[in-house]
Amino acid sequence: MSTPRGSLVLVPNTLDFGIAGEAPAIGDVLGASVIRNAAALTHWVAENAKTTRAFLKRVDAVVALAQPLQLLSIVELPRANKGARGAPLADLTPLLSPALDGHDIGLISEAGLPAVADPGAALVQAAHQIGIRVVALPGPSALLLALAASGLNGQSFAFVGYLPVEAAARSARIRELEALSRRTAQTQLMIETPYRNEALLSALLAHLQATTRVSVSCGLTLPTAFTRTDSVRGWTHRPSALPADVPAVFSLLAG
Amino acid sequence: MSTPRGSLVLVPNTLDFGIAGEAPAIGDVLGASVIRNAAALTHWVAENAKTTRAFLKRVDAVVALAQPLQLLSIVELPRANKGARGAPLADLTPLLSPALDGHDIGLISEAGLPAVADPGAALVQAAHQIGIRVVALPGPSALLLALAASGLNGQSFAFVGYLPVEAAARSARIRELEALSRRTAQTQLMIETPYRNEALLSALLAHLQATTRVSVSCGLTLPTAFTRTDSVRGWTHRPSALPADVPAVFSLLAG
Repeated sequence: MSTPRGSLVLVPNTLDFGIAGEAPAIGDVLGASVIRNAAALTHWVAENAKTTRAFLKRVDAVVALAQPLQLLSIVELPRANKGARGAPLADLTPLLSPALDGHDIGLISEAGLPAVADPGAALVQAAHQIGIRVVALPGPSALLLALAASGLNGQSFAFVGYLPVEAAARSARIRELEALSRRTAQTQLMIETPYRNEALLSALLAHLQATTRVSVSCGLTLPTAFTRTDSVRGWTHRPSALPADVPAVFSLLAG
Repeated sequence: MSTPRGSLVLVPNTLDFGIAGEAPAIGDVLGASVIRNAAALTHWVAENAKTTRAFLKRVDAVVALAQPLQLLSIVELPRANKGARGAPLADLTPLLSPALDGHDIGLISEAGLPAVADPGAALVQAAHQIGIRVVALPGPSALLLALAASGLNGQSFAFVGYLPVEAAARSARIRELEALSRRTAQTQLMIETPYRNEALLSALLAHLQATTRVSVSCGLTLPTAFTRTDSVRGWTHRPSALPADVPAVFSLLAG
């Protein structure tokens, strides 16, 4: 007799991480089945244990947790480099051992979908390698909401993560992405640490051609949410200030 | 005195479009604020009017519609080509005229987020051009759920739409995407008409190298959902049959 294995359950978080002001009710942003599933999980792997406990308190206010918060197992993922290569090299298989004992394991990020633009993909990869079922619960992704709201090409797009911080490398990368976008009509999406939002916008406007369109989305799903899409010429003639404390998604499409 | 303008509201749909069997309750998949916002809208632009009416009946069962369904304005988007260039050439500005009269307009697709992998982006672009606010309500995207569940690189990825149907062009495109993925460590995502799911998988396995990883996700958010990620060698040694009537998302990452 063998115990049935548990699954690795990808649990979406809300998109209000680290943003001051009142967060929306969790049930306003996430579907009821997501909240029910999250409340039932007793084993978690998390990008950040503290924000996971905050998430679970919001869940508990809607659907009682299966076990008191302090009895839940919450293990943090090892920190990965924010590099283009993504997966860290550590063997994450031990984090999956509760699934071998029949427990479902929740994987959760600080915001949005786990394993997208965060270090969780390596755990999902390990689950596939040892034959643990992976279940993705529906939830919002700031990247895709920004793409939808941009009006740029949603039939071909790429997310390229962070641009280099160093000025010469950054301007070279911006020109490379514009050339790629022109050749393939592919929207290029990127993110930045919020205090560098203005610096990234300035660099985009300085190095892109006048007819290339640039879109910026800030604070999606919040009352203060905005998306502006305009040509480089339009942004330059009519500047917008960006908040320095709210995550933004930037995208460009060569015009 | 001028009337305040309405917004263009991007309303997510569920992911069960065209799939036989019982659909999940709409409130299980979408957040409560999305359903409240959708119920309040009296003007819609839709990829398909019939599926929009079906969506609104599901909304009405949770939150009463502001007006009876038959009194709502539902205008279909002109059909666009499913080509890489995305935006159709028709001027869509007239579809936005209710917003100039102060009405919010909902934009909705047959499944998932509007303006992503569907013809809605041109309407969003038109809204930005005439200064109508664009608001994206949170909801799931099959593309991003598949990416999360794949365990492939979620820090750099591209969605490339449909591959060519003709065999030589298709195999050339598959090799091109693999070379790009090898050079940039970027996950490449694509979709296919369901009855060609098996043919696309066969083509991927025939033309990719043995160590390249291929992921297939089918029926995400449904009870029958599955994701398999394996090397080309693994898929070839232990084949999986794919359903011919359920949309799938395919992705690859050169190994």
